[in-house]
Amino acid sequence: MNTSASTTNSDSQQTQAVPQPPAELNELFQRAAQESYQSEARRISGESRQALRAIRQASNAERSQVLVRLAELLGEAGVRDEILQANRKDVEAGRANNLRANLIDRLEINAKRLDDIIAALREIAAMPDPVGEVILGRKLASGVDMIQKRVPLGVVFTIYESRPNVTVDIGALCVKSGNCAILRGGKEAVHSNVALAALFRRALKDSGLPENAVQLVEETDRAFMLSLLQRDDLIDLVVPRGGEQLIRFIAQHSRIPVVKHDKGVCNLYVDPSADFDQSLAVAINAKLQRTSVCNTIENLIIHKDFPRGADLLAGLAKAGAKLLGDEPTRALFPGAEQIVDEDAEYGAEYLDERLSVKIVDDMEAAVDFIYKYGSEHSECIMAQDALAIRRFEASVDTAAVCINCSTRFHDGGQMGMGAEVGISTGRLHVRGPMGLRDLTTTTYVMQGSGHIRS
Amino acid sequence: MNTSASTTNSDSQQTQAVPQPPAELNELFQRAAQESYQSEARRISGESRQALRAIRQASNAERSQVLVRLAELLGEAGVRDEILQANRKDVEAGRANNLRANLIDRLEINAKRLDDIIAALREIAAMPDPVGEVILGRKLASGVDMIQKRVPLGVVFTIYESRPNVTVDIGALCVKSGNCAILRGGKEAVHSNVALAALFRRALKDSGLPENAVQLVEETDRAFMLSLLQRDDLIDLVVPRGGEQLIRFIAQHSRIPVVKHDKGVCNLYVDPSADFDQSLAVAINAKLQRTSVCNTIENLIIHKDFPRGADLLAGLAKAGAKLLGDEPTRALFPGAEQIVDEDAEYGAEYLDERLSVKIVDDMEAAVDFIYKYGSEHSECIMAQDALAIRRFEASVDTAAVCINCSTRFHDGGQMGMGAEVGISTGRLHVRGPMGLRDLTTTTYVMQGSGHIRS
Repeated sequence: MNTSASTTNSDSQQTQAVPQPPAELNELFQRAAQESYQSEARRISGESRQALRAIRQASNAERSQVLVRLAELLGEAGVRDEILQANRKDVEAGRANNLRANLIDRLEINAKRLDDIIAALREIAAMPDPVGEVILGRKLASGVDMIQKRVPLGVVFTIYESRPNVTVDIGALCVKSGNCAILRGGKEAVHSNVALAALFRRALKDSGLPENAVQLVEETDRAFMLSLLQRDDLIDLVVPRGGEQLIRFIAQHSRIPVVKHDKGVCNLYVDPSADFDQSLAVAINAKLQRTSVCNTIENLIIHKDFPRGADLLAGLAKAGAKLLGDEPTRALFPGAEQIVDEDAEYGAEYLDERLSVKIVDDMEAAVDFIYKYGSEHSECIMAQDALAIRRFEASVDTAAVCINCSTRFHDGGQMGMGAEVGISTGRLHVRGPMGLRDLTTTTYVMQGSGHIRS
Repeated sequence: MNTSASTTNSDSQQTQAVPQPPAELNELFQRAAQESYQSEARRISGESRQALRAIRQASNAERSQVLVRLAELLGEAGVRDEILQANRKDVEAGRANNLRANLIDRLEINAKRLDDIIAALREIAAMPDPVGEVILGRKLASGVDMIQKRVPLGVVFTIYESRPNVTVDIGALCVKSGNCAILRGGKEAVHSNVALAALFRRALKDSGLPENAVQLVEETDRAFMLSLLQRDDLIDLVVPRGGEQLIRFIAQHSRIPVVKHDKGVCNLYVDPSADFDQSLAVAINAKLQRTSVCNTIENLIIHKDFPRGADLLAGLAKAGAKLLGDEPTRALFPGAEQIVDEDAEYGAEYLDERLSVKIVDDMEAAVDFIYKYGSEHSECIMAQDALAIRRFEASVDTAAVCINCSTRFHDGGQMGMGAEVGISTGRLHVRGPMGLRDLTTTTYVMQGSGHIRS
């Protein structure tokens, strides 16, 4: 039994845990309460709910046809020009507002990216229908026949930043699974989003389904988002994608259930039994193959008895990792930068070449470290010892355990699920990649011939 | 495509949708923010989180043994006396405070009810382990082997009223599934709950597992509950069981995900093709077999072309139902009381012998009625026409559809799931009976031999 005092990484004494809206929030709350926002939030969410009745009853062929139609439209020269022109306005406004270069890059749509959007639409259209799948069935003791089947989840409100392709991706995943989407993108992409959403609604109309199955929120005032977040009577799910601060704000102030796609502080533990070549290759891949995504590692934990710790660190540095570490790390590899504030460094999601290193005396200490600093996203063990692997797997509490393979495999596409809404770091409803299947809920259907309960 | 303007029953214009704590709430929030409550909330939830590390790794035999041990203890004469004595204090206090007779009844523990608790414990202990079940598995295109398996959900905070047996039931379901329980019962049952929780902790200790896997919150101030509801860093799920007002308060103010067990406004629709005898038997059963539970019907919707509507109503009245209805209902059965306020009557969860009747021109109108007034709990159709059944089932959006059988079958025990936490009326994570399976989340385990992503 473990007796460490540490619990999760977010158990900090500083957490202000009671929902006293600070002074600066009060003004936001007051704006959210004004009648114009309230009635507009009721109108938008009510129209989505109304559209849901038709979209949830449409067949897979009808729902998929919307995506195919949108792909066709995006292939037309005139339409492409419209989208690119709208996007140019956003890019120019971004430059005028000194938006950072990487954000301008995320914002930009070009011919290649339009083709990628078309390809994604065709891929989602061709995916198996998640609706109607029977996941349980039996004859009850009473003689009643029972099945449990997947049905659309309902009205999904997605809040995201920057990349306008999300407007199409999330809209497509929602319509494919029989749901309605309310989309609220960032204000820097508003022209692109308006153009893409209008096109999506045209595809819905062309396919004989209600346009309101996809609605874009053009008002980007955060107070209006807050008004929408209170409509738990009309909206079933909120999916925030974006910065940590935005996600935290939404989780705190939403009355609607939220599936969070939070940060990834992923850890790789190297056991004494680990193969050196595999460990080096996996560590390099997990850190450096693409540094800006959530399934990369931020911390490398090396057992003190792993024979070639110094070589592992040298190899990582040579491959381009910027190493930071505690004293024992620097004893193995003096080129590593000294860690001054352990809580800050080991708890950080770098999203760049930095990699924090920790040397531990035993696996228990590695697991304690993961409980303290990890974000329950992906934990990796490199080991040849089957008992060590089994113990590690049972000890950590996370969305994905990667055994002798890169954390970069923790991805809907790699895992054979196709397009994903994001990777959920919560525990309710879905943990890990959120795909089409996770945009459903279930209904029990019971059938008898006049059966009553005695 | 349906064009009705009605959406869900809760889309009322009166809803105050923005989280401005009204003046009377401010004082509650201020008390919740005081340092003594904050630190106590952090202590309790932190201790549960700490205990989780051991309980989630315990085997099914170890977890089940706790329940068997508790059953043994509850069979000992000395222990039984202790529990009955503690309960007597609560009952006496309840009488002194003029608690209603039905609440006194819910509060009371006697020898028979103790035996029921013991039987429930043994039943839960014998249930199949929900932990470790592999629900998905494949070899990925990359060659990595992947499985998805069930793991314990985490720390579950249950808030309930009156009945002290819930303390044992929920604690047992949580421990059986590898979770930790924080239990907050009503203040009227505090002596009984303290005695039962202490016994549960003794059973945990006797079985070599951490006592903190089950913790009772003795402080019943609602402000302290509010402090706990903010600890989304340490608590994974909130399950409120109780009155509608309590559930609404929790859903509005919790930062932790909530699985609601809300009210049941269930509807029975009688199609023109329905068999008369079956319809009468099912309607009587669904309304009158036990009126105080959520899976009973509150509304009876009769198609105007059903040939024997008058006989159906007369039969129901004769069986003890108190009928209310609109004008066409009263034309069929003049003994029905006239409905004055349709929104109030058709939207009400009576939990007694009252039954509201609505006559409709077609199934579309019945479905509209259900969308407007139903609570998405259980919808029943009586019909012999297969196409009508299929259309009804596809149209309604609910936790359970009952075809030619009583809504009373929508119950974990009847559905072969054993003991249940409650019936979820939400759509996320679980919809319908919440059993052991729903007290789990999942982990993906991926295994390679040095596999990296290219």
